[in-house]
Amino acid sequence: MIGINDISEINQQKIIDQIRCLGIDMIKEANSGHSGIVLGAAPILYTLYAHHLNIDTKDPKYFNRDRFVMSAGHGSALLYATLFMAGFPITLDDLKRFRQLDSITPGHPEYGVTPGVDCTTGPLGEGIATAVGMAMAEANLRTRYKGIVDHYTYVLCGDGDLMEGISYEACSLAGTQKLNRLIVLYDSNNVCLDGNTKETFTENIGMRFASQGWNVITVEDGNNYELISKAIDEAKKQEEKPTLIEVKTVIGKYSKLEGTNAVHGKVLDDDDITAIKEKLDVRDIPFMVSQTAMEEFQYIVNKRCEGLSKKFNEKLESLDEEVKAELNYFMNDNKKVEVKELFYDAPEELAEATRVTSCKMLNAVVKDKPYLIGGSADLFGANKTYIEDGGNFNSDNYLGKNIYYGVRENAMGAISNGLALHGFRPYLSTFMVFSDYLKPSLRLSCMMNLPNIFIFTHDSISVGEDGPTHQPIEQLLTLRAMPNLDVFRPADANEVIGTYNAILDKESGPSVISLSRNTVPILEETKANEVEKGGYIALDTRNKPVGIIISSGEELHLALGVAKRLLVKGIEVRVVSIPNLGRFIKQDPEYIESILPVEVRKIAIEASSSMSWNKLIYNSKYLITLDEFGSSGKKCDVYRKYGFDLDSLEEKVEELLK
Amino acid sequence: MIGINDISEINQQKIIDQIRCLGIDMIKEANSGHSGIVLGAAPILYTLYAHHLNIDTKDPKYFNRDRFVMSAGHGSALLYATLFMAGFPITLDDLKRFRQLDSITPGHPEYGVTPGVDCTTGPLGEGIATAVGMAMAEANLRTRYKGIVDHYTYVLCGDGDLMEGISYEACSLAGTQKLNRLIVLYDSNNVCLDGNTKETFTENIGMRFASQGWNVITVEDGNNYELISKAIDEAKKQEEKPTLIEVKTVIGKYSKLEGTNAVHGKVLDDDDITAIKEKLDVRDIPFMVSQTAMEEFQYIVNKRCEGLSKKFNEKLESLDEEVKAELNYFMNDNKKVEVKELFYDAPEELAEATRVTSCKMLNAVVKDKPYLIGGSADLFGANKTYIEDGGNFNSDNYLGKNIYYGVRENAMGAISNGLALHGFRPYLSTFMVFSDYLKPSLRLSCMMNLPNIFIFTHDSISVGEDGPTHQPIEQLLTLRAMPNLDVFRPADANEVIGTYNAILDKESGPSVISLSRNTVPILEETKANEVEKGGYIALDTRNKPVGIIISSGEELHLALGVAKRLLVKGIEVRVVSIPNLGRFIKQDPEYIESILPVEVRKIAIEASSSMSWNKLIYNSKYLITLDEFGSSGKKCDVYRKYGFDLDSLEEKVEELLK
Repeated sequence: MIGINDISEINQQKIIDQIRCLGIDMIKEANSGHSGIVLGAAPILYTLYAHHLNIDTKDPKYFNRDRFVMSAGHGSALLYATLFMAGFPITLDDLKRFRQLDSITPGHPEYGVTPGVDCTTGPLGEGIATAVGMAMAEANLRTRYKGIVDHYTYVLCGDGDLMEGISYEACSLAGTQKLNRLIVLYDSNNVCLDGNTKETFTENIGMRFASQGWNVITVEDGNNYELISKAIDEAKKQEEKPTLIEVKTVIGKYSKLEGTNAVHGKVLDDDDITAIKEKLDVRDIPFMVSQTAMEEFQYIVNKRCEGLSKKFNEKLESLDEEVKAELNYFMNDNKKVEVKELFYDAPEELAEATRVTSCKMLNAVVKDKPYLIGGSADLFGANKTYIEDGGNFNSDNYLGKNIYYGVRENAMGAISNGLALHGFRPYLSTFMVFSDYLKPSLRLSCMMNLPNIFIFTHDSISVGEDGPTHQPIEQLLTLRAMPNLDVFRPADANEVIGTYNAILDKESGPSVISLSRNTVPILEETKANEVEKGGYIALDTRNKPVGIIISSGEELHLALGVAKRLLVKGIEVRVVSIPNLGRFIKQDPEYIESILPVEVRKIAIEASSSMSWNKLIYNSKYLITLDEFGSSGKKCDVYRKYGFDLDSLEEKVEELLK
Repeated sequence: MIGINDISEINQQKIIDQIRCLGIDMIKEANSGHSGIVLGAAPILYTLYAHHLNIDTKDPKYFNRDRFVMSAGHGSALLYATLFMAGFPITLDDLKRFRQLDSITPGHPEYGVTPGVDCTTGPLGEGIATAVGMAMAEANLRTRYKGIVDHYTYVLCGDGDLMEGISYEACSLAGTQKLNRLIVLYDSNNVCLDGNTKETFTENIGMRFASQGWNVITVEDGNNYELISKAIDEAKKQEEKPTLIEVKTVIGKYSKLEGTNAVHGKVLDDDDITAIKEKLDVRDIPFMVSQTAMEEFQYIVNKRCEGLSKKFNEKLESLDEEVKAELNYFMNDNKKVEVKELFYDAPEELAEATRVTSCKMLNAVVKDKPYLIGGSADLFGANKTYIEDGGNFNSDNYLGKNIYYGVRENAMGAISNGLALHGFRPYLSTFMVFSDYLKPSLRLSCMMNLPNIFIFTHDSISVGEDGPTHQPIEQLLTLRAMPNLDVFRPADANEVIGTYNAILDKESGPSVISLSRNTVPILEETKANEVEKGGYIALDTRNKPVGIIISSGEELHLALGVAKRLLVKGIEVRVVSIPNLGRFIKQDPEYIESILPVEVRKIAIEASSSMSWNKLIYNSKYLITLDEFGSSGKKCDVYRKYGFDLDSLEEKVEELLK
């Protein structure tokens, strides 16, 4: 194996400086970007790619590669320059188109856009937490497929990442779970965008990570690749703990602004660039690359990684078909889960909360599927997402199905992203109202179109006693407005069945299941197989209806109750169940018209923001919805207060139909 | 001053046990609540109220009181039982109505509902972070009004609070700022809802807090009030650091389920309650209160706190009128800021980003108003919210105007709530897309109707190069759907002026200012004084318009550009500016009809979720909005890609009006 000294010291320094100059040229050309990290952290990225990261630059998605997450996503220029120099399929032209529309070198790293980029980053803290998920995935797969999957997960993060709450959450869990293959390189420069961190961030980082069960190593001179490399060597030997390597760097090294926040998000001026290149002995021509430096870099990488991908494929071939097929799921982009349709037979007389039906479905499908894994943010009992006999995921049992996330919603979201990026199809759960906490990572799963299943229970004011802090109002709307997100709100066991079938049948993309806290009867009007269309007629009239009530979830029961009461009075009303508004509005206009004829008056009943239903009903008068915070009280009292009891609804609907 | 031994040991224990029994009776009666913390942490709350908290039970809002935040908000029964016993204006009937609709004893503590409750809590972690804000407020006021304001801020938190990312964020800042008057009592019982914390939470908490610059004290026996009291005494002596007192308790103490997660959110059964009361020698009659215990508790409290409120008022009276008036602002619920109307004269030829105008307004108004204070989550330079010559808020200068929050949006949100709860009118800033991170605390400010001013810049895909992770899409919609939130999106300097005036003129309630990154010219069509109505005609036609374009913010410039191009073609289009949709739809129907006549076709242009504008335009065909993620690229290229360049818009609008 090629050692650190196979290429002369001078030449290694040359490569690093070449990366630096390419990075600042890219930023200059784009007139946008972050020069500080390029100049400061280039030795870290060089060392990692040259001497440690097991990759195949010709096969960037090689499954057993070491993962790398650029948590400090604003350092994208540094990452792209390194990937280019290391031999990934990225051209000099791509670098010249840094931050330009539809280039493969966007402003922040984007998963699926750039070869060698394992994760979309940018919002600080998300990357490091996502990497924890990748390391968990690796620990699971390493245990399951001994000798086949076995790699490290590396992160580059900065002060900003470590200030975000999510980084503490995720690292706390990583320590508890003893993820010893997780190695975080911390670009420690004491400078954030607004100035020196002494105003904001005086933590003893080493002590902090030690308190969370991490191994901590310090590299005093971050400009010295040998020291960095030795630290990584040491980290790899850890058998119990994840490792943080604090690498002391100087932000904007060699710039006239070095060591200050002014250089953080700066495009350097021409004089500064000229002076830097002079100091580094690099020719002052933009995008001028030393072929020798590039070839030597690629020589180091290829020599070390030669045959890794091939060897992996050979091992794969030697497996028996069943294991191979199973492992294939992890390697495949198609995340559809094969189940026999409608696999849960709900008894006719069933009455249970939709979260309970969800629990049965989840248990039925998860058990024998190694790629399904998930958990709850300390609400297993309430969310009903525990897999019986599935075991708990921890350092004694990385094959455990049940992940105890603790009260850490944001980390749960990002960790799920990491699991998904490593081939799993994860589910995760909390109260609907606390979906707010994981919104930033949910947004990233939507952006990456990951197949995560978000299970949000206790989805309206019907939560009751816990009061307004626990009663969602605007959350459903937010989720429905999220690009790429498929939001289901089933009304009863039938629709829960339909929801699971629709979701498991998908090849990709995130989904939400919004579930009730309370027991509801199974309805004879609901139809599991209509759920995938988003909406359908639950109760129709013999004659032309005088009105249509649209509803979803627990409130569908109220809508049906009102319709039946009105029928007694001779008022014939159709009831339309819309378990998935986003899917429904994407149906053929003819289908929509057949369900919701233009000329018939429509009323929506949902204990949630009115703005969801303005999509179908223009006049807000016809929206029986909720645009204020709820109250603590018994469900029935809370319903009555806000007009969601049957009597109030009947009166209101009758009035509206007059 | 009455010492801990003035009441006999037996009697003090009696009071604690009485609180325990009242708490479990309340939960039993409500058939809902959390018994574990009531039984486990009663000695902590007793000790705090009996021997330390400087309060006036007859004047619960006495301004110089010690603040107490029940961060573990699910422990509401414990809090209410303690407040009742301590003599706050809460009756036994109130306790019997625990968790019932419209009682003053709701499921989680709610600010403004229960005397003695200083903060709404429930979502874990928010309370402790809000308390950091209160402690910052106190540090500022103690410095400004020497000898007048001078108190401690106490918190009770549990494992759940300390797992949430926000708790690390806020405590990190508290350590940096040396908030030595902040004392956190940590109910440490190693049990969370889902089980023992060994599965999820194995941090060394003492080391963690030490790493953040805190003083840490451990109380090994949390059932011993003397030990707790001694620890608090010690904490009060701290002159440099905030203090964490880890109090080791047994969850559900004395229950047959003690020490297990089963007792956490449990309503105890009758047998268990009987057995507990027997152990504690309390008569087994629900809500039976020992008068002696109650009187003795109140005796201790009153003896210690006697005259505090009176003395404060006397000091207040002795101040000169100007200082008194100033201090009065902090004590008053009316948070209107007096400014002379339209105090910033925008030059006619002005061209600047709305964030720059905002900066000027903020600087003009903040400087001489001690109650205006704020900062940024490491984006001062981008958000333009730095107050020149305002000084930085830190341990050397608690009077500093500028709070360096670091990259900690969620903590910034909660800390601002704490500042507001202590009488300030805080502003806070980050990128619009990162409003996601502080949504949970923003929601609490809406629930408490606090006068916070949220300044969110970089409010659309026009951010450009930073790409989709930094380009908001659904955020504006979410904010507009938040109950009580007043969302402004001004188009230019005129509307920024109008926005500030409208916000400063409000007596209460949170507001958002959504601002552009890019330079825009001042428009002759915009009107500062129309902003408060939410919407108005910016450009009208000589004849009846053939269509109306509705727009907001930066896109209003596009709308006007399109209208002017169409006018050249003889197509007369009205342009309506809607800087505040929520206010606009609350106007008189006549006003709305005068702006948006029913019979005229309407088109909305906003580079943001369509669902906002369905409120005004039913047919989605007429919404030129954005329901997908953006892209990295130059602003002009990104605009073109999504159809927000003038050419595309002109073509589309003309087509729609045909």
